[in-house]
Amino acid sequence: MSPKITTELLKQLRQVMKSPKYVQEPVQAYIVPSGDAHQSEYIAPCDCRRAFISGFDGSAGTAIVTEQHAAMWTDGRYFLQAAHQMDNNWTLMKMGLKDTPTQEDWLVSVLPEGSKVGVDPFIIPADQWKRMSKALRSAGHDLVPVKENLIDTIWTDCPQRPCKPLITLDLSYTGVSWRDKIVALRSKMAERKVLWFVVTALDEVAWLFNLRGSDVEYNPVFFAYAVIGMNTIRLFIDGDRMMDPAVREHLQLDSTLEPEFKIQVMPYGSILSELQAVGAGLSPKEKVWLSDKASYALTEAIPKAYRYLTPYTPICIAKAVKNSSETEGMRRAHIKDAVALCELFNWLEKEVVPKGTVTEIVAADKAEEFRSQQKDFVELSFATISSTGPNGAIIHYKPVPETNRTLSVNEIYLLDSGAQYRDGTTDVTRTMHFGTPSAYEKECFTYVLKGHIAVSAAIFPNGTKGHLLDSFARSALWDCGLDYLHGTGHGVGSFLNVHEGPCGISYKTFADEPLEAGMIVSDEPGYYEDGSFGIRIENVVLVIPAETKYNFKNRGSLTFEPLTLVPIQTKMIDVNLLTQKECNWVNDYHQKCREVIGAELERQGRHEALQWLIRETEPLVRV
Amino acid sequence: MSPKITTELLKQLRQVMKSPKYVQEPVQAYIVPSGDAHQSEYIAPCDCRRAFISGFDGSAGTAIVTEQHAAMWTDGRYFLQAAHQMDNNWTLMKMGLKDTPTQEDWLVSVLPEGSKVGVDPFIIPADQWKRMSKALRSAGHDLVPVKENLIDTIWTDCPQRPCKPLITLDLSYTGVSWRDKIVALRSKMAERKVLWFVVTALDEVAWLFNLRGSDVEYNPVFFAYAVIGMNTIRLFIDGDRMMDPAVREHLQLDSTLEPEFKIQVMPYGSILSELQAVGAGLSPKEKVWLSDKASYALTEAIPKAYRYLTPYTPICIAKAVKNSSETEGMRRAHIKDAVALCELFNWLEKEVVPKGTVTEIVAADKAEEFRSQQKDFVELSFATISSTGPNGAIIHYKPVPETNRTLSVNEIYLLDSGAQYRDGTTDVTRTMHFGTPSAYEKECFTYVLKGHIAVSAAIFPNGTKGHLLDSFARSALWDCGLDYLHGTGHGVGSFLNVHEGPCGISYKTFADEPLEAGMIVSDEPGYYEDGSFGIRIENVVLVIPAETKYNFKNRGSLTFEPLTLVPIQTKMIDVNLLTQKECNWVNDYHQKCREVIGAELERQGRHEALQWLIRETEPLVRV
Repeated sequence: MSPKITTELLKQLRQVMKSPKYVQEPVQAYIVPSGDAHQSEYIAPCDCRRAFISGFDGSAGTAIVTEQHAAMWTDGRYFLQAAHQMDNNWTLMKMGLKDTPTQEDWLVSVLPEGSKVGVDPFIIPADQWKRMSKALRSAGHDLVPVKENLIDTIWTDCPQRPCKPLITLDLSYTGVSWRDKIVALRSKMAERKVLWFVVTALDEVAWLFNLRGSDVEYNPVFFAYAVIGMNTIRLFIDGDRMMDPAVREHLQLDSTLEPEFKIQVMPYGSILSELQAVGAGLSPKEKVWLSDKASYALTEAIPKAYRYLTPYTPICIAKAVKNSSETEGMRRAHIKDAVALCELFNWLEKEVVPKGTVTEIVAADKAEEFRSQQKDFVELSFATISSTGPNGAIIHYKPVPETNRTLSVNEIYLLDSGAQYRDGTTDVTRTMHFGTPSAYEKECFTYVLKGHIAVSAAIFPNGTKGHLLDSFARSALWDCGLDYLHGTGHGVGSFLNVHEGPCGISYKTFADEPLEAGMIVSDEPGYYEDGSFGIRIENVVLVIPAETKYNFKNRGSLTFEPLTLVPIQTKMIDVNLLTQKECNWVNDYHQKCREVIGAELERQGRHEALQWLIRETEPLVRV
Repeated sequence: MSPKITTELLKQLRQVMKSPKYVQEPVQAYIVPSGDAHQSEYIAPCDCRRAFISGFDGSAGTAIVTEQHAAMWTDGRYFLQAAHQMDNNWTLMKMGLKDTPTQEDWLVSVLPEGSKVGVDPFIIPADQWKRMSKALRSAGHDLVPVKENLIDTIWTDCPQRPCKPLITLDLSYTGVSWRDKIVALRSKMAERKVLWFVVTALDEVAWLFNLRGSDVEYNPVFFAYAVIGMNTIRLFIDGDRMMDPAVREHLQLDSTLEPEFKIQVMPYGSILSELQAVGAGLSPKEKVWLSDKASYALTEAIPKAYRYLTPYTPICIAKAVKNSSETEGMRRAHIKDAVALCELFNWLEKEVVPKGTVTEIVAADKAEEFRSQQKDFVELSFATISSTGPNGAIIHYKPVPETNRTLSVNEIYLLDSGAQYRDGTTDVTRTMHFGTPSAYEKECFTYVLKGHIAVSAAIFPNGTKGHLLDSFARSALWDCGLDYLHGTGHGVGSFLNVHEGPCGISYKTFADEPLEAGMIVSDEPGYYEDGSFGIRIENVVLVIPAETKYNFKNRGSLTFEPLTLVPIQTKMIDVNLLTQKECNWVNDYHQKCREVIGAELERQGRHEALQWLIRETEPLVRV
């Protein structure tokens, strides 16, 4: 993969940074965050402004361009990818390493006195604006909102904002009607004494109304905002999507409803002016609830005294705790997903790998093909990471023709993939060897497995935050002087975003909400050897109540149940490094795979894959 | 222990809260933090204002008195003690529990509109002021500084502020001269481009000048501030202590020195006016460095634009990393301390416990007696926690005549104690049974031991923060549905405060600095059964480089070496619950106790204690 040549683009950007047509006063630096106006992690092509200006298209990163410099901040998952995709105009700032400056510190170190730093106020979250603005001001600079997005002014072939049809989800999938969700939300609003709630995150809008879309690849969401009052519901959405009879029926747009459940549909672009009108009409003590990650532009629409900001919205928290309809849907989705992967791995192993004709892209496409054969399949839940040998060490690698390697019997193969089904979202990583792994590869794999098991089997008191479990995943690696530069787990949506808050398992996050029964997270420790291989073992797991001998004096306790039921390649395990307890965990897990997935393979008449499953789930024996 | 009757005192306080003699406008609430003007944890009797007004004398707690209410916030260590010591005028606010309101939220819920909340600006740290002030202001109230401390106005028999002689420490103890410490500090100041550094914490003043005092019980510190400029050193200290020839010699007060090392001695009470003068004389871009925990009064003396605030000062960080003279001193101190404890435990076991004449107080006194026989003993490092049976469940218990129980062969005995020696500070907890422990007691003890070992033997990469190790200490307890409501470890000073920053091992702290070789922390998981018993196993441990197979790609790795060398009672261990690795850890530890402490007992001619040590360090055997 060759880097994007950005010399001309940077020149143009630096011109508009000084152009009175776009800025009131010249800005000496311009910040290009990676999000969209909803602070989404996955974004539509029209919002990929940071990738456009720099070439780096990983899911996380912030670009800052000054008159002299261009710098990119990203985290450990993307160090290699960013280095590959950016040309020499760019400096890579490796977040999480000790000597890497923060964006604020770096700006202060490079800017001339009294500089102005510009940013699109719709793209920057309010909490980041505040921190950045404060740091710059204390060093004599100013953060200023630039209304027109400066990247858009030089992006001549910028794609249109998508506006695709909606999917309605009935009670059998959601468990709770949108009306009941509104009622619950209003009761949370009443508790906090707020009159208005502004829904800015796309997955929160989708969840609240039991609707799904396809405006953003991999995330079944659609561009919309909502503003919920105690007696009003306003949905800001474009296009003729509201003309669809199924949607009208679902939202009861043509029914005679109690006024407090009547949805007013408004244009997407009118959110700012409507919110400003709400803000202007408030009496003292009347508050408007927003996420502190909502955009600076929308936050500013509400006068400061009337804002009620929280890191996690009540919708974010309610959405994270899956009800029984959602949990059952997730189970079904994971069974179908496992069937597809058993087919894939059997195909790879038996037919193709020995012939040397399967590339990473072919394998990824085949995985999608098998998944698409399953009921209620909608799309993939993220770009398949199909990587062999050294590509496996690029943590969020996506195969493209320039990097595409052929799977072989000499290299480790890592497949991190998942899908959106109407009943649930999957995300699973398996690492395997089609020949004979070296002792070192097996050793590393086994440490990662020990970490995976340590989290999956952990028992912890109610009220524990996920970040307190992160070190369990690393302990076996640490003992031998190994580690990995990413978190251990993220929340997973229910036919929604594959990454969602407010819970997770990471050494980096301390603002996570406590884990609760019904939450769903991933458990995915790894180990990466730059230039050689990558190992990751990932299951999606459900938080469930645990039985303990003494039950924390009735405080109760929790543990995890794997929803992912795909064999872990035993060939990669050095059994002698496992304790008897760990060995039993693997055997119990494989027994469950055999029973549950075996029955489904049988039902679907996939006999060859069933034979593969049975072979791959033979119990381990410690010697 | 009967609670303090506070009805009359609260009435008097509520009167002065409205008295024009002390407040410009009446305050509807008054906050009584537990610290002194240096935000010390341990304080002199004259600073025990919160204990005076409430009766609760634990080391951590904040009282707030309004016209109608009196409330006390404290943490899990003190729930039982505070409940015992306070009368019904007080409401206990249990910090760390989910439903406990923060002080700000509680104030907002109880105050009438537009209230004023008063606090002594010298006692409240600037960061707390800021948070509290912001929260109150957003709810329409005001936090106001009340110059005269309102508790002092009603405290008729308030003791005098102590002003005791100083101890000078030579290079053999400190390893670095005060001049070299000033040079290092100034180089940190130059790095951050600050012109002045204000030393407000008592242990930081003591460490910087290689002086010790005894103004505060258990903490070898003295009341003083220092202000270090690039060319000036000002020491604010009272009394005739600067007349002591040894001190004058040590500080070279009468020598012809380069001007930048000439110490100007000033009255303790002149710090505010001197700092205001410094603040008034600053030019743009000149900065003054303060801890963000310095008092609001001193922080306000420097105009906001000139302040450089950090959570940890460069002195705090330098002080935490012990040099080889300090480490060797700590080793010597811990050997002497172990000798004293071997004597004590032998005495308790052989002579007295069977006779039923030893109370908690007698045992604590005897421990002090044995310690005081050791070379360079100065004083205890904290109030000895000598507790048997249910008293052991009061986490920071201190025996007093009303609660004093007799040690018996039927109850678990917990001794948490330590001393200040000229060469180091100790802090050790051992839990033991003089009769036959129950299976349940052994089970709980063994889980605590497993947690202790998991931390002590942990290997982790350079740059790891201590809080990431906290869950290791809890895992074995969690598996059975048990937990403890306190952190796992704290930094320990070198002949200084037994609790010091900036590192520790706790689920509560995320602002800790990464662990570094040379830092010293405690490792002290526990388990407490209210009304029955308490278990805690505590060693002081030194952070040392670890040897690992793969060494984190040269990032390097760390582990701990126990400095405390006192047998862990094997009678309390259920060997079958230990892994072979844990069993080996205990046996290796006991072997080291036998060798190192055995040799010292031999040298000191303490033959009976030596016999006890040998008996108590017999290897465990797993069956």
